[in-house]
Amino acid sequence: MSGSIFQAPTAAMVRVDDPFWSPRVASVRSGTVPVFYERCREAGILDHIDPDIADKPQRDLAGIHGFSTQRFWDSDIGKLIEMAGYVLLLGRDAELEARIDALIDRLDRMQQPDGYLNSWFIYQEPGKRWTNLRDDHELYCAGHLIEGAIAYFQATGKRALLDIMCRYADLIAATFGAGPGQKRGYCGHPEIELALVELARATGEKRYLDLARYFIEERGRQPHYYDAEARARGADPAAWHFGSYEYCQAHLPVREQTKVVGHAVRAMYLYSGMAEIAAETGDASLKAAGERLWRDLVSKRLYVTGGMGPSATNEGFTADYDLPNRTAYAETCAAVGLVFWASRMLRMGPDRRYADMMELALYNGALSGLSLDGTLFFYENPLESRGDHRRWKWHRCPCCPPNIGRLIASLGRYVYGVSADAIAVHLFIGSDAKLTVANTAVRVTQRTHYPWEGSVSITIEPEHPVEFELAVRIPGWCPNAILRLNGAQLMRGDMVIDAGYARIRRRWSVRDRVELVMPMPVERLRANPEVADDAGRVALRRGPLVYCLEGVDNAVPLNRLTLADRTTITPAFDDALLGGMVTLSAAASAETSEGWEGALYRNAPPNRAPAAIKAIPYFAWDNRDAGEMLVWIRGG
Amino acid sequence: MSGSIFQAPTAAMVRVDDPFWSPRVASVRSGTVPVFYERCREAGILDHIDPDIADKPQRDLAGIHGFSTQRFWDSDIGKLIEMAGYVLLLGRDAELEARIDALIDRLDRMQQPDGYLNSWFIYQEPGKRWTNLRDDHELYCAGHLIEGAIAYFQATGKRALLDIMCRYADLIAATFGAGPGQKRGYCGHPEIELALVELARATGEKRYLDLARYFIEERGRQPHYYDAEARARGADPAAWHFGSYEYCQAHLPVREQTKVVGHAVRAMYLYSGMAEIAAETGDASLKAAGERLWRDLVSKRLYVTGGMGPSATNEGFTADYDLPNRTAYAETCAAVGLVFWASRMLRMGPDRRYADMMELALYNGALSGLSLDGTLFFYENPLESRGDHRRWKWHRCPCCPPNIGRLIASLGRYVYGVSADAIAVHLFIGSDAKLTVANTAVRVTQRTHYPWEGSVSITIEPEHPVEFELAVRIPGWCPNAILRLNGAQLMRGDMVIDAGYARIRRRWSVRDRVELVMPMPVERLRANPEVADDAGRVALRRGPLVYCLEGVDNAVPLNRLTLADRTTITPAFDDALLGGMVTLSAAASAETSEGWEGALYRNAPPNRAPAAIKAIPYFAWDNRDAGEMLVWIRGG
Repeated sequence: MSGSIFQAPTAAMVRVDDPFWSPRVASVRSGTVPVFYERCREAGILDHIDPDIADKPQRDLAGIHGFSTQRFWDSDIGKLIEMAGYVLLLGRDAELEARIDALIDRLDRMQQPDGYLNSWFIYQEPGKRWTNLRDDHELYCAGHLIEGAIAYFQATGKRALLDIMCRYADLIAATFGAGPGQKRGYCGHPEIELALVELARATGEKRYLDLARYFIEERGRQPHYYDAEARARGADPAAWHFGSYEYCQAHLPVREQTKVVGHAVRAMYLYSGMAEIAAETGDASLKAAGERLWRDLVSKRLYVTGGMGPSATNEGFTADYDLPNRTAYAETCAAVGLVFWASRMLRMGPDRRYADMMELALYNGALSGLSLDGTLFFYENPLESRGDHRRWKWHRCPCCPPNIGRLIASLGRYVYGVSADAIAVHLFIGSDAKLTVANTAVRVTQRTHYPWEGSVSITIEPEHPVEFELAVRIPGWCPNAILRLNGAQLMRGDMVIDAGYARIRRRWSVRDRVELVMPMPVERLRANPEVADDAGRVALRRGPLVYCLEGVDNAVPLNRLTLADRTTITPAFDDALLGGMVTLSAAASAETSEGWEGALYRNAPPNRAPAAIKAIPYFAWDNRDAGEMLVWIRGG
Repeated sequence: MSGSIFQAPTAAMVRVDDPFWSPRVASVRSGTVPVFYERCREAGILDHIDPDIADKPQRDLAGIHGFSTQRFWDSDIGKLIEMAGYVLLLGRDAELEARIDALIDRLDRMQQPDGYLNSWFIYQEPGKRWTNLRDDHELYCAGHLIEGAIAYFQATGKRALLDIMCRYADLIAATFGAGPGQKRGYCGHPEIELALVELARATGEKRYLDLARYFIEERGRQPHYYDAEARARGADPAAWHFGSYEYCQAHLPVREQTKVVGHAVRAMYLYSGMAEIAAETGDASLKAAGERLWRDLVSKRLYVTGGMGPSATNEGFTADYDLPNRTAYAETCAAVGLVFWASRMLRMGPDRRYADMMELALYNGALSGLSLDGTLFFYENPLESRGDHRRWKWHRCPCCPPNIGRLIASLGRYVYGVSADAIAVHLFIGSDAKLTVANTAVRVTQRTHYPWEGSVSITIEPEHPVEFELAVRIPGWCPNAILRLNGAQLMRGDMVIDAGYARIRRRWSVRDRVELVMPMPVERLRANPEVADDAGRVALRRGPLVYCLEGVDNAVPLNRLTLADRTTITPAFDDALLGGMVTLSAAASAETSEGWEGALYRNAPPNRAPAAIKAIPYFAWDNRDAGEMLVWIRGG
């Protein structure tokens, strides 16, 4: 592994202790994990890996396109174990560990003598393994189990599942590749690529990195593996439901891909894997491909919330600037995937283009997927609702709950980047981190009331004085940030501002303290005029938080309201609201029903009356009574 | 039959000769009829009724909800024959008649000894007739064949199909009813009700009216027939895909229904049947139920185009004021159905509430379903498109082409209403009608350039001078209409204005001439503020025509444009455009891309620049290159 890249610390190395995030981490521990375990049990997902149950459940076979989501059940187990691993870092829990150990025991007994491990192909379609990589999520399931194994090992020191998954990864490495007798395939749903990189890091085994690289390099090459694979099954490749291999980003070799297309979660996971390989190998053309895709996403295809993928049809991307609000699919997992991708782009060095987006997706489009108590979920994250979009307890494809759960429970992994002689501060989250830089153990502590307030205190405690660079992100939304070192304001000469990071190189001593002060005015965002759905509308943002109106806080239907350009918008912390939130209030005007009795259309414009608007952070919507929600407010 | 109701003339009685409509009628004759025949042939629909073809095609069995649209194929044949009947009135056509006669011969040979006639249950599911009225469209198919039989008989004098359908109707009458041994069922898709009323009129047989009345009266009663029927099939009524019987307007007895709900076409057809029965029987409570449903539709659930039913899920209604534009389903057949319903409400006397809506739906939401050449079709009629909604050649459920085709080809049926001593002029369409009023033959001729111009000349030629009332509609959009009789302006004392009709009672002599002069200013319509999707937007209407912007006529993307409230909008006839159209032009302003390079969101509002807008009638959109379309334009 290269020492010049900015590695993420493991979750074990950064303990989150933060007024905003700690309650959310606690809700994942007390809510999401037990609820998800129980619902997986009720759905039969846990029984499906039990070799002692001969008569395996078969569910949902008449699902979308006649395809069963049961094929991805192993991935839910992987994410459950991963999420459990992270919450066990917060404090061991014998009952939870016993449950996970029992699952691992089932996986151990399910594993075939050659290392193969996939419950669908062992129990439901024996003899058909590796026959439909395009559709069947076989390597995807392996990837999630690998990630689960790593997290559980790092939390508990128990390496049973890690060993199981190494055996399976070794079988996969023997099966796939360009060598004689090997299959030149790769998964229709990318995931295993980034998991294998993590496995290489966790085990120090470079061969897993090589396998990840192989999957990335092979993707989209001609003659096309999925064509050959379909014909081998007796199927017509042209008859595929999804039409183009754009759906799974296998339409072109990855370096030739220039547009973010297809299924949004697959895209994010693939690009994450590409970034990992680019960082680990220093491959400039792979890095450039990722940067091109990134620019395409953020300049043409991303919701203001960091959500993406407007269409339910392909769970993904459509056309440039096609960003409908009410019908936005914007899957929670896609915004989680953007956090993953951005964090991997940051492996190649601090750059706020990536960290700003990582933060945006985290605090908005991803976090919105989880209820405040951690027990209810969004799959789709629209930017407008008439009150008919509600959080659910369960979904036939339950990928989102453990995805947002594992992200929140492992948030420490995203706060810092650490290279041989630099520490980058990507996120402002109260935390205690034990890092190693310049061959020296350094404790880094953050204290902050972010995102409600814009002050962050960063304490540096090396085990002995040592020179390195501290790179602190100055968010793009904050042009007037101030930095202080031990109480004295840092001026231009004291640091270098590079790619949006204040880089402070010095000899750090115990209890050096850096303070970052970020003014947080309320911003009125406008969308590029190419975005037809946001024409004439404004979105409110303060710091990293995008706001929305909810029906419960506003006296009139939300699309009657217009917010004039010069009106003052007042932030205020309301500690009684949803566990404490900064709300935004402003005077507005609203169209009235006066004179409209019984009329649906008329010539005269509606009358207007003064009104007030109150906005809450987007992530917190639908935690109260059902009602309307609106991000893009009519401008005045 | 009652003499006090306003009967519609048959298509044979009113010959359309109109600069606007005659080319459209001709395009149905030369385009829609042969194209629809050919596509029905290609799809196997014509073979499906051929007793000589033993191996019947089975198509599309994996369609929506596993349900085959093949079950309604007989209805397509009924509508094909009906459409053919109307175009044969324009001039006999030996080749077309031979084709239709051959189809009728197949139907004759297919008919079972007891009169039963349904190709699905004869060939695909023998033994299952009348086992699933809720879903299987069995009586619906009969209704369309009945309408086809009447039209073909009236056009050609050939009564073979009429006799076939009378035999079938007699079997249906024997099968369904409240008598001993009869089934108390009714069709999930209303249609046969209005067809039976027409059959009673065409044959003079009151028993068909009684059967129609039975179907109306029985609908929605408890214990629910569809529950019992499902249980008899071994099915769980609660497991029905569509959930509530609101889907087919069978959730309550019809007099207790107060909201327009469910599948929009079914709703329109049912309400049409209710209006026919209310008119024929003078049933005040049934009339009141229809009026209640009408008010609900026009005050809360109707697009400005006369389209309705926003949702593809139920092909129908959702919630009050839920009228999304881009995703509007607004099936062509539903707008056609509104023409049917309105025309039936007019049986109870002239009332412009109904005639205005009949005209609105006809010229906008229905007519939009047919390309100018009569060969391409819309199923959905959205009010906004990004260029991805195009007319199609064929559809797995090809109900719309013959529905709009038969409406246009039989337009004469909708122009007048005739009672014992009054003629009502509902529509302004150049035509020559042979009517009978006050027991006297009266020729009524209209000459007009409507809807492009607002002057209409109506010549009355009784075979001898006779007193009756001429009731001329004054459209609701025209507050300043002028009426002249033989050149002299009619004043208040010369007529009575009642329910929006100028009623002129006098002794009419040969070549009396009434002129109606309607100023046609361009109107800016606003939607009720409850309609969130139209907030801050205006729709343009001139006379009966709703307008839209198309990309091809406008230099900038349509949602960048705003039209200020006081700008002058100029109508102009462009004889080179799409066969001749009045377009609307105005100065506007547009947001520019200046300074937006690479940015998707920013704080500063977009710059604006002057721009021009040009609108064309909504019905004519997508007859040129693909591109954007917008009805509701941003207001300034």
